[in-house]
Amino acid sequence: MNLESKIRNIQDFPKPGIGFKDITTLLKDGEAFKEAVDRIVENLKDKDIDYVVGPEARGFLLGAPVAYALGVGFVPIRKPGKLPAEVVSFEYDLEYGTDKIEMHKDSIEEGKKVAIIDDLLATGGTVEAATKLIESLGGEIASIQFLIELEFLNGRDKLKVYDVESIIKY
Amino acid sequence: MNLESKIRNIQDFPKPGIGFKDITTLLKDGEAFKEAVDRIVENLKDKDIDYVVGPEARGFLLGAPVAYALGVGFVPIRKPGKLPAEVVSFEYDLEYGTDKIEMHKDSIEEGKKVAIIDDLLATGGTVEAATKLIESLGGEIASIQFLIELEFLNGRDKLKVYDVESIIKY
Repeated sequence: MNLESKIRNIQDFPKPGIGFKDITTLLKDGEAFKEAVDRIVENLKDKDIDYVVGPEARGFLLGAPVAYALGVGFVPIRKPGKLPAEVVSFEYDLEYGTDKIEMHKDSIEEGKKVAIIDDLLATGGTVEAATKLIESLGGEIASIQFLIELEFLNGRDKLKVYDVESIIKY
Repeated sequence: MNLESKIRNIQDFPKPGIGFKDITTLLKDGEAFKEAVDRIVENLKDKDIDYVVGPEARGFLLGAPVAYALGVGFVPIRKPGKLPAEVVSFEYDLEYGTDKIEMHKDSIEEGKKVAIIDDLLATGGTVEAATKLIESLGGEIASIQFLIELEFLNGRDKLKVYDVESIIKY
């Protein structure tokens, strides 16, 4: 199946000049959604993954079914103030200002093999921050999987030391 | 498996006096996560579901894998400003103030059978708002499934006309 044809392009969202890749049209197509998840699962199947980690909120949409299909646990990365127990947090730079993400301190144990899954690799800032958090907990980043990669933004440069794959490239 | 034993109670989160049901301890346990999803799938399997709908963000964690396992599409309900195409929105009352949720106008077609999935039935405000949005698009609410129900909050009273099930009750 041509999964790229299931992605909707929305011009000027969220700001003028930005072309937004809308994955809701893929998600609502049961066959396309299943194929997207299965292709990520296929990429991970020989990597002996212990946990799938996904950033709020769109990272949950693919990360949770991939964890389910692999039969492993899912660990959410959240915005500040959302996780109820003790957290580790990481602040990172955006084009304007900063952003911060959190994980539970007891979410990943030393030496566990982790796959990070997100919908989109753009500049790579969020996922780079995720790698710092996971490694600070002693987790090993076994793979990073994206549904979509915007190659012209060179986000992959921030993730050079990792195994990085994406299903659809622009 | 006793899924209730996988839920962590966090006292005084997000406010003093509130006991928060933390599902991250269930999600990170691969077997518990799989069983929770499979039990919801079992509840839905004879209902001829066309779409699974889940509210941002915790509704994605169970809704997306349930949609995947059923082989149907997943439709997200989001906070204002997150969905890039034309939306329908619904504002509803909270204890203090109001909240608003949105769906894409073209997310559900007339007559389609929808299952709403969320992690927690508390007062029922968000899911009641979700039923209004889905019905305004012509969708039929075939079932509403929760991982956890706080029975003492009587949220079920707001959803009386629907098929409502929950896996863990407090």
